[in-house]
Amino acid sequence: MSHAVVLLSGGLDSVTCLALAQSQGYTITALSFDYGQRHNAELNAARAIATHYGVKDHRVLRIDLGAMGGSALTDAALAVPESHSEGIPITYVPARNTVFLAFALGVAEVTGAEAIFIGVNAVDYSGYPDCRPAFIDAFQTLANLATKTGVEGVSVRIETPLIALPKSEIIHTGLALGVDYGLTVSCYQADTHGHACGRCDACRLRRDGFQVAGVTDPTRYQ
Amino acid sequence: MSHAVVLLSGGLDSVTCLALAQSQGYTITALSFDYGQRHNAELNAARAIATHYGVKDHRVLRIDLGAMGGSALTDAALAVPESHSEGIPITYVPARNTVFLAFALGVAEVTGAEAIFIGVNAVDYSGYPDCRPAFIDAFQTLANLATKTGVEGVSVRIETPLIALPKSEIIHTGLALGVDYGLTVSCYQADTHGHACGRCDACRLRRDGFQVAGVTDPTRYQ
Repeated sequence: MSHAVVLLSGGLDSVTCLALAQSQGYTITALSFDYGQRHNAELNAARAIATHYGVKDHRVLRIDLGAMGGSALTDAALAVPESHSEGIPITYVPARNTVFLAFALGVAEVTGAEAIFIGVNAVDYSGYPDCRPAFIDAFQTLANLATKTGVEGVSVRIETPLIALPKSEIIHTGLALGVDYGLTVSCYQADTHGHACGRCDACRLRRDGFQVAGVTDPTRYQ
Repeated sequence: MSHAVVLLSGGLDSVTCLALAQSQGYTITALSFDYGQRHNAELNAARAIATHYGVKDHRVLRIDLGAMGGSALTDAALAVPESHSEGIPITYVPARNTVFLAFALGVAEVTGAEAIFIGVNAVDYSGYPDCRPAFIDAFQTLANLATKTGVEGVSVRIETPLIALPKSEIIHTGLALGVDYGLTVSCYQADTHGHACGRCDACRLRRDGFQVAGVTDPTRYQ
């Protein structure tokens, strides 16, 4: 059996990645981060999803990303915006995907994984520099050089199956694999029960996705 | 004033980097990691060094690198070897420098740093894949793509002033800058007082360095 590390935030994209990886026959190590994010409901969703999918190895790593500051997602002094603006949004967490992929690379090496699945998306999140294909390509080059297995000629592949899909197609992909999106939380400021605000960028993208997909939105709102 | 992030482990190489960065006129954010390493004496050394150098912003980030396992430095089940062997040593921590540089990149973005100083060395640590110039070059490429500032055309430079120097020349460089190496701890299994074992690879490299440099070794042994 081939093994993969799946970055599992508890949101819509990451559960779709998990379902895709399982459908391709991989055994899974799911990796989540407790990084001082406001929307801790995400982590509860990640745990519920891992259980639902029978993932035996789900690692939740605590990291101090919040100590860096500079993002509305981790810094209580900054408000989560409720209207869309141009450019790189204040919800961007500095170097977040670089940090997440770096840990995934270490876990992949220790668990002997052939692939790392990350649900980055360059369509809806075009404002985030670390969601772009060029960033992923650069990380793949780094991964080939950074690890013991890479030096021995066996590199881990960075898999981004959602990178070019609009949200509605991600939803269709997941539904075809039987994903229950009612388990997921996308909202940047969900309450402790996982109920979404309905107003932030993440809520807006998710709601629009279900509308365009023409399927019922299972999101529970506050 | 230009600002730099300096990765400060508390060892001989990192304090030399700190002294070099200060001598070049940078104000400093020092960044250390509490990652479940056996040699926690390193962190105490890092704190003492930051104080000695008047570094006002010293961040110690707790991260779960130990939970990955697979290295004698973080996994209590694996013994630290006391004789030198060929190939990549068991003291190699999977993806460690990738993780450290990823955090440094985020901190650089938040603090507006122009440079990140890391004391990697390809001469003595040739067994570690993530100490090689090709790895650093790949991380520089990634950094240019990964961040908001990079997208805006202002990239952070990854500075590796020690990468091509043998240990003895690192020591001469530091001594010329007035470094007190008695503050530093290099041993992989130092005791709580920072006294070195004298037998591990790190001790051997350090002792050889002082011998070749022809200067007194201030290391306190157990």
